[in-house]
Order: sequence, then C-alpha cells, then structure tokens
Amino acid sequence: MELTVTQENLNHALSAVSRVANTKTQLPILSNILLRTDGNRLLVAATNLEIAITQYIGAKITKPGAITIPARLMSEFISSLPKESVELKVINDNLHIKSGTYNSVINGYIADEFPELPTINESSSIQYSIKVEDFKKAVSQTIITTSSDSTRPVLTGVYWHSYNNQLYLAATDGYRLSERRLVGTKSDVSVIIPTQTLQEVMRNIIDDSSEVDILFDETQVRFRINDAEIISRLIDGNFPDYRQLVPKVSETTVTLNKLDFVRITKIAGLFARESGGSVTLTADSNKGVLSVHSIASQMGENTSEAKAKVTADGQITLNSRYLSEALSVIDGENVEFSFSGKIAPCILKSTDPKTDYYHIIMPLKS
Amino acid sequence: MELTVTQENLNHALSAVSRVANTKTQLPILSNILLRTDGNRLLVAATNLEIAITQYIGAKITKPGAITIPARLMSEFISSLPKESVELKVINDNLHIKSGTYNSVINGYIADEFPELPTINESSSIQYSIKVEDFKKAVSQTIITTSSDSTRPVLTGVYWHSYNNQLYLAATDGYRLSERRLVGTKSDVSVIIPTQTLQEVMRNIIDDSSEVDILFDETQVRFRINDAEIISRLIDGNFPDYRQLVPKVSETTVTLNKLDFVRITKIAGLFARESGGSVTLTADSNKGVLSVHSIASQMGENTSEAKAKVTADGQITLNSRYLSEALSVIDGENVEFSFSGKIAPCILKSTDPKTDYYHIIMPLKS
Repeated sequence: MELTVTQENLNHALSAVSRVANTKTQLPILSNILLRTDGNRLLVAATNLEIAITQYIGAKITKPGAITIPARLMSEFISSLPKESVELKVINDNLHIKSGTYNSVINGYIADEFPELPTINESSSIQYSIKVEDFKKAVSQTIITTSSDSTRPVLTGVYWHSYNNQLYLAATDGYRLSERRLVGTKSDVSVIIPTQTLQEVMRNIIDDSSEVDILFDETQVRFRINDAEIISRLIDGNFPDYRQLVPKVSETTVTLNKLDFVRITKIAGLFARESGGSVTLTADSNKGVLSVHSIASQMGENTSEAKAKVTADGQITLNSRYLSEALSVIDGENVEFSFSGKIAPCILKSTDPKTDYYHIIMPLKS
Repeated sequence: MELTVTQENLNHALSAVSRVANTKTQLPILSNILLRTDGNRLLVAATNLEIAITQYIGAKITKPGAITIPARLMSEFISSLPKESVELKVINDNLHIKSGTYNSVINGYIADEFPELPTINESSSIQYSIKVEDFKKAVSQTIITTSSDSTRPVLTGVYWHSYNNQLYLAATDGYRLSERRLVGTKSDVSVIIPTQTLQEVMRNIIDDSSEVDILFDETQVRFRINDAEIISRLIDGNFPDYRQLVPKVSETTVTLNKLDFVRITKIAGLFARESGGSVTLTADSNKGVLSVHSIASQMGENTSEAKAKVTADGQITLNSRYLSEALSVIDGENVEFSFSGKIAPCILKSTDPKTDYYHIIMPLKS
C-alpha cells in the first residue's frame, strides 16, 4: 500500500472511527484500525464486533493494499500533524508515515487478521432518510430512559417500531419511559437498537450533515451520514408492551413555565441528596402554584414554588434527577405535568402538541 | 443575625471561599463557612487551618450576628437562585434563607465553634503591590516545577526571595527548576509560599482585578485582591541554594521557533509513552536542525525535526512531558535551548531577554 491523503481528511476519519477501536477488548486486533484502498479512496474502519464504523476519504493511490495499526497512536499522531499532505507506505507489515519534517513508523498487523466488516442485505430491508435535526432530537429524547442493566438486554436500547403507520421510538428502564413519534411509515418495523450504537451515530453527525440514512434487515441496522457508515447488530428479544402503562386520564394537571420548573427542581434536588433525590411536589389549585419540598435531615430543608395552572389539588413524590432529565429534553416554553395520586406514574409533555413526545416517571414512596 | 444581600454578591463570595472549606477534614466545622456581620458588610469566610479566605460583601443589616453553615449546600443553593435579593435570618442556630418563591432552612453551628481567623502583623511586615498580569505570569511559570512530595516540604512551595535588590520566585522538584524575576526590592525577603495557597490566589483573580497586594510577616503571608483576603502559613525551612545548579556555560545552543519545538516535542511524546516519556534530541549544526527521536518498542518509532540555529552538534535525552510543560510557560516567539552533553542539565529560555525567566531540566539516562 502506498498513497497520499490530506491531514484534515485522515484526521477526520480517524477521530470518527477510533473511538470504537479504543474499547478494552480480549482480541488485541480490535484495538487497531483497518486502512484499505478501495478504488481511488481509502477506507478507514474499526469494529468492536457489535458496531463497525467505516469512513471513506479521497486519496492519491500509488499502490493498492491494506494494513491494520494501533488506533490510538495513529489517531493522536495524525491529529498532531500540521495541515499538509501525509504519505502512507507499507513496508514489511509496518506503516511508514511521512509529512513534511515528521517521519514515523508504526508497527502494523496484516489486514487478513482483521475481522470481516459486516454487510447488510439491501434487498430485504427497510429504509428511511431522516433529517439530521429530527434524528438528533428523537434519539436524545429517548436514549435517556434506556437501561444500563445488562440482565435485561431489551431495555438497553431504543425500540424503533411502527404503530398506526407511524414510526415511533420508545425506551424504558423500568422507572421511566419515553416515546417520540418520528415519521410516517408504510413498513412494518420492530427493532431494538443498542444505546451505544445510537450514541456513536450521534457523535458522527457533524455540522454539514443534513440527513441520516437508515437501513434495517432482520438482525442489523446501518446508518449513513456523509461518508461515514455505521453497521450494528440489533438487540434480540421483545420490547415490553409499554403502551398499556401510559396513563389514559389524570386527576391533576399542572401547566407551568418550563424554566421555572427546571429551577425549582434543581434547587429541591440539592437538598435531596441524602434521601436519594426524593422530592415531593404539591399542586395547589387555589393558590395556583406548584411547590417542591425536600428534606436533608442533617442539613436543612427547602420549599420552592412556581406559578402554575392547576386543575385539581394533588401530591406526588419523584426522584429529582429523573425529573430534571425529563425537563431537559422536553421542547417548548411550557410543560404539562399530569398525575393521579401518589402511586400512579406521572406524565410530562410540552404544551405544544407538535412536539410528539411524552415522558413518564414512576413515583417514589413518600 | 438578619440581613439582605444580592444573589450576585453572595454567590461570588461563596464560590470564592467555599473551595477551601470543601477539602476533606477531620474537624467537621471546617467544611462550613462562616457568615458574620461587620459594620454594614457581611464577612464570608472559610479556612482549612493552613489557608483562610475571607470576602466582604455589602449588606443591608437589620440585626448583627454570625453563624456557620455547610459550605457546599449553601453555595450550590445560592448559585441556583435567580439574580434577586436574598434574605438571611438566623433562628435557633439555623439559617433561614428566602428569595422570591424560594425558601430554605439550612442547619448551622454557632459561630463560636469556628476557628479564629488568622491575622497578620502589619507593623513588622514587608509589602508589595504587584500588577495582576505580572503576578499571574510569574506564579504560573514557577508553580509547575514545585514538588508534590510531602517528605521534602521546602520543595512543595515557591521560594520568594530577594537577591541583588530584586525579588525572585524559584521552585524545583529535584528534576527541574524555574526562576523568574518579579520586581525590584529593598527589603530582605526569604519565604516559601505553599503551592496550594498560590493556586487559591490565582483562582481569586477575576477580570476586574488590577493589583495583588502581598504582605509577609515571619510565619504568614496575606494576599489581597479586590475584596478578597487570603492568609496562609509559610513553609518552614531553608530552600536549597539553587543558583549553584544553574549551568554557567553550555556547549550547544539551539535557537528555534517555539511552536515548532512544541509540536515536535508533542509528537515525539506520543511515541514515548512506553518509555516513560524519554525522547532524544539531536542538534545538527551542519543541517541546521533540531530533531527529536522516540521509540515505542511494540508500536513503532518517530523522528520529527525543526529548522534551528545550532552552535555545535550535541545530543541529550529528556522527559517529553517536562519539555512540553516548560515550553508552555516560556514567552515569546523563539526559544533558546542550551545543554552540554548528556549529563549536565539543559536550560530553556525565551530569546527575548525582557522575559526574566529560565527553566532547567535534568536529563534522563539514554
């Protein structure tokens, strides 16, 4: 292999793929990246056997070939170089890198040792093109309620599925649940995409990205953003029938300014550290306020309140961190917060119906 | 105690002092801050028995008094409040805090339990007023070569001392040494100021600070910046006679662009991780280059070079981190790098003689 690329292109590709290679692994070659010529392009790829990321960059290729080299050293070295052209040349399984007055040799392994990059069955697949801003919004709104508990794998991802000709994203960790409508669909979709895969896709979205192309087959999903391609396995199993958990009616509905709600929750949370974040919310329909009370037994206590439109008196105890996280992903100026006594789950959403999102939190015992 | 202050002033004072209170301590009251009325001002103070920080803010005082309360909870709570007035009132050793719709009680201890704040003997003392930019520069240039090894306490601070009617700052950790001339002086000064104290002073310098007032007595130093006052003990003991360690002449002197030197050092350092940062610098007077070579036995090797004015051929092996840190605090566009063979210390300074600074690094065995 012998070729010339620009430092900017190579650096961009390496920083996109090398994170996947960096994870601790029992198979040493997985901490390497693969470089392989492909026509007049250079393929830069990494995989952890669950996710594979590949990125194509333009190259002036003198001699085709391939090699794998340590991801971290290679990406740190290239990122430190000035923005000039970089010559790459394989001699005896080692990569010689030359750029201006900078000369390095990085020891490689032959590319044959590298795991085969996954491919997706394009014929039997379902495809979407999603606007980048819609994709980012929907993923960030649902990813926060995924579980990190590997004993229930189906909860460690986001459930992408069709329902009444709409594509929905949903996720739950057993304590909270979120659902977002994304686009209309005629296909029948029901897949669970791992949280880490979605995080990698989010990291690969750069300023000039406009669309994310998504393709599902039975066991895999492929995302394409500009010249990057991410292929991941799907999570096997059935997502719980979460729709039955969503409260149909609520006794108390509180409508208030979102920033007010964020602030009283944050302040109450400071006093709730000793009690695992437990804060009690009281809706007062006469006074027209929502108040949050928390007690730090050794340290003191706090009551903060905000003006609100309250349909009926009520009280509920919640984890302040869950509440803060929910408010951080709800769009719009005003929030509608509904609950029915102390045992039923509460539901949070924007007063703007176009936001197509709701967030449910289970109450704590008070 | 009963008073009203603005959220901005109280927040500023709390964030300035509470870091000192936050350190883990065997005496629980040291994790508290002291609030005490003083005329028409409120004193906000914290101490870890080595350093005390006090800050005065304007207050509308209804009833004088004092209390101590947990620093972290108080400063986080106040920083979360909107920018409005805050009422503080002590009832039964507890502090009631009210601001708009936010009401808190924070449990306090009586102020009598708080350690007495140190005072300095103003009559028998030596005083300097240093421009903020000179102070920051001099401290940041010397603090990086202090030691963190508590078995040699005199090396864990910066040595402020007079020499030929000039005030110098010097510090060494045994592997490197730095010295900076600060101002002229007629006093006889010889004190060692703890690194942590200087770091606290640096953190208390804010945008509108113009001067730092410094006062020494036999055992303490006081810094004043705007309305903040930091009093610290000095380190007891004699600083080593470092001037005898400074090379008088050098066989090889290399002059080069500082940013070039930074980049070749950084790149060489990437390949030197396995070898504890060891990089070998070679000055070639014929070619007019300084090259840096490093070997990562499992991973590869690197040679990077930069154009340089070289007086004589020479080679020296250094720790790349020390070299990078030295270059990061040397002013000006070009650096003069002098050494004499592989055993003697090397000396780094700006080619601009007005910078009044040099930095010495002991070589590694190559």
